[in-house]
This record gives sequence, structure tokens and C-alpha cells, in this order.
Amino acid sequence: MQQKDRKQMYRQQTMSYFINAALEIIEEEGIDSLSIRKTAEKAGYNSATLYHYFSDFEELRIFSAMKYLDQYAKDLPAYLEPVTRPLERYLKIWECFCLHSFSHPDIFWLLFFKHADTNWDFSYYFHAYYDIFPESWSEDAANYKNMLSSANFSEREFLSLTDSLNKENIFLPESDIHNLATMNIMLYRGMLETLREDSEYLSIEEATATTVSFIRRALTSYNIDLD
Amino acid sequence: MQQKDRKQMYRQQTMSYFINAALEIIEEEGIDSLSIRKTAEKAGYNSATLYHYFSDFEELRIFSAMKYLDQYAKDLPAYLEPVTRPLERYLKIWECFCLHSFSHPDIFWLLFFKHADTNWDFSYYFHAYYDIFPESWSEDAANYKNMLSSANFSEREFLSLTDSLNKENIFLPESDIHNLATMNIMLYRGMLETLREDSEYLSIEEATATTVSFIRRALTSYNIDLD
Repeated sequence: MQQKDRKQMYRQQTMSYFINAALEIIEEEGIDSLSIRKTAEKAGYNSATLYHYFSDFEELRIFSAMKYLDQYAKDLPAYLEPVTRPLERYLKIWECFCLHSFSHPDIFWLLFFKHADTNWDFSYYFHAYYDIFPESWSEDAANYKNMLSSANFSEREFLSLTDSLNKENIFLPESDIHNLATMNIMLYRGMLETLREDSEYLSIEEATATTVSFIRRALTSYNIDLD
Repeated sequence: MQQKDRKQMYRQQTMSYFINAALEIIEEEGIDSLSIRKTAEKAGYNSATLYHYFSDFEELRIFSAMKYLDQYAKDLPAYLEPVTRPLERYLKIWECFCLHSFSHPDIFWLLFFKHADTNWDFSYYFHAYYDIFPESWSEDAANYKNMLSSANFSEREFLSLTDSLNKENIFLPESDIHNLATMNIMLYRGMLETLREDSEYLSIEEATATTVSFIRRALTSYNIDLD
């Protein structure tokens, strides 16, 4: 048993070396420049060894991308702290998510949209990431991390919206909440993809303010009063 | 002069052979399978000859994609014919555009979004296409074709929306019209990109109905009455 734990610990430590090497490359050259060869070299291993720890290049990319999601999850509690009204908190979550994801649109696209058509197990990578980097896990962020790990993007948006409306005693039929959640995701995704193609389109702050204002409008179109 | 005309005609005819060959490949295998080699082979030329007529592969792809835009432009007048109210016509234009573009999301993405960050001259390709295929030009569609060739996607949406509101004597500040146009484009683009990644997400008809219903909601959020 202890033997197995030590083996597992060694494995996770080695994975962390590769992921940290990959993150350095992403920071310096962007995620499009990442490669197995460069990552292995920077970590001091050869490419064949890397494949003992990651099933393919995409898995290395996804583990590396998780770091950016972790930064968002860490940032969120302080961001929400001064806000009490549930729907304003809901909008603040979007604001914080926009700020983080619009800073790294390709990375968040990879995590949330690239694999939408396959049944890939986001929560597996999510939990495995915190097994590899347990020091990253904080109780403070645990709430939001649970939310983040629980389901796919549109399910998460639906749950977050439903929860906020319930807390405000606003009744909307489930189909309306579903449509509103979808509308908000389309608005977000439209902006994310625009920034992926054209990083000069708007500043991160402008793109965030614009997207949140559109989501506000979507809410008002369902007669949800935000004043 | 006549010599030059004949030379030009010969050039355009040869271009049309290449474009038609490319279109056959797109129809059979999809735009991702298109290649210079396959296109030249199907047209009965070699690859080097193709490069005398197209500056690069992307130019061949864009000329081929124009055919799908032409089909939309041809379809639009009959689609609008029974509708008189300006804002309903505006929504019908979106509906027709969604139906066509969601049937070929990669092709419309290529035409409208891929080159958004470069100052590429859409109207050059637009007019060159109808020089190569003059039989495709019809007076009936000329109105919409002028609109299509006039500007970039967001400018076109802004003009189309402004025109419809004016005709209905609805006054909105220019900044509101600009924001509403941007919101509608984000909604459309969010759906287009979702379908590019996951063709099973919704049927073409469902995706169209959903997008148009979101655009309706965006209008109502600006107190534009559609009943």
C-alpha cells in the first residue's frame, strides 16, 4: 500500500514537472507554440518519457490549461465578497470569468468548447489537476471549485442562474431559464471567438463590460428587474 | 483592347474551371478536404498552373465560398416577398442567413470571420466572383448583393438595423443601435461557432429558430415592440 502511494506520488510529481514546463512555454510563447518535444526538453526528459505520463499531447494541454481555471477559481471569492444580491453575484461571476478567459481566450476555449462534442470527462481532469497540485486547493475556493467541476458549461450556467433566481424569489419556467442560459452562453462565446480571431477587437476590460451588459439585457428581456 | 478583353475572358473562364472543380470537392468531401493538388487534378491542370490564377490556396477557398453566399442572395428576395413590416423583414433576413450559413458553418465563418483582423477586401472578391460567373448576377438579387458587398459584417448589420428602425419611425441613439447590432452578431456567432464544433448540437432549423428568437429578445430589451 505504501509502495503504491509512493509510486503514485512519484508519478504525480513527474507530471507536475511536465505541466510546469508546459506552462512556462505557454507564458513565453503562447499555447499554439506548445509541443511535446519542447515540453520534454524543458522538463529535462525525452519525449518518450512524457508519453508515459500523458496519453497524448491534448491531455498535456488540458492539464496545463487547468492552471488558468485555478487562477479564476482563486480570484472569484474576493471578487464576490462585497456583493450580496444574488443576481448581482451571478453577474459578478460572469464578469470575473470574462476577465480571466478573455485574457487567455484560446486556453478557455480549449477547456470549455473544443471538446463539447465528445463526452470527455472534464471533472476527471479537474480533480486529477488538484491531485497533482494539492497545494493549489483551498477551502476558500472549494465552493466554486465544486461548481466548476460538477457539469458541462451550459449545465453550470443553468444551475447558477436557477440558484440566483430562486434566492431572489423570481419564478421563471424551466424552459425560459434554459433559453436564457443558452442566450448568455452564445453572447459569451460570440465574444470569446471574436477575441480569439482578433485580439485587437476590444481590450479585455471593454470586452468584459460589453459582454456583461449584453447578459444584463438578456435578463431584462425576460422581465428580470436588476435595479 | 479587344486582345486584352479576350485574354481577360480566357483568364476568367479558366478561373471558373478551377472554382467549379473546388466546389465539387467541397460538396463531396467538405471544405476541409479541399487542396490545391485535388482541385488542379479535377480541373485537368497541374498545381503550378493554378497558382497563375490564384495568389494562394486561401484565395481559391474564398472564391469557392462565394458560391454559397450567392445562393443565399438568390434565395433572399423570394423569402422576403410576403413580409412587409420593416422589422419583420429585418428578422427574415437573419432567418434566411442563418438557414444558409448554419448549413455550411465553416464556409460562412471563412467568409465573414476568419479574416476579420486583416483588412482584406471582401468587396474585391465579391465583385470578382460575379465577373467570373456573370450569369449568376440577377437584377432581382442586385439590391441585396449591393448590401452584401458594401461593408464588413458588423457595419452591414448596423446599416440593416438602422434602416429598419428608420422605416418604422423608431428612434434609438446611434450608440444603442451599435450595441444592439453587436449583441445580435455575438448571438449569431456564438451559435455558428457551436455548430462548427458540434454539428449535432441542434438541427439547422432549430438553430435558426433559436438564434432568431434570441435576436427578437435583444430587440425587446431595447423596448422595440415587435407585436
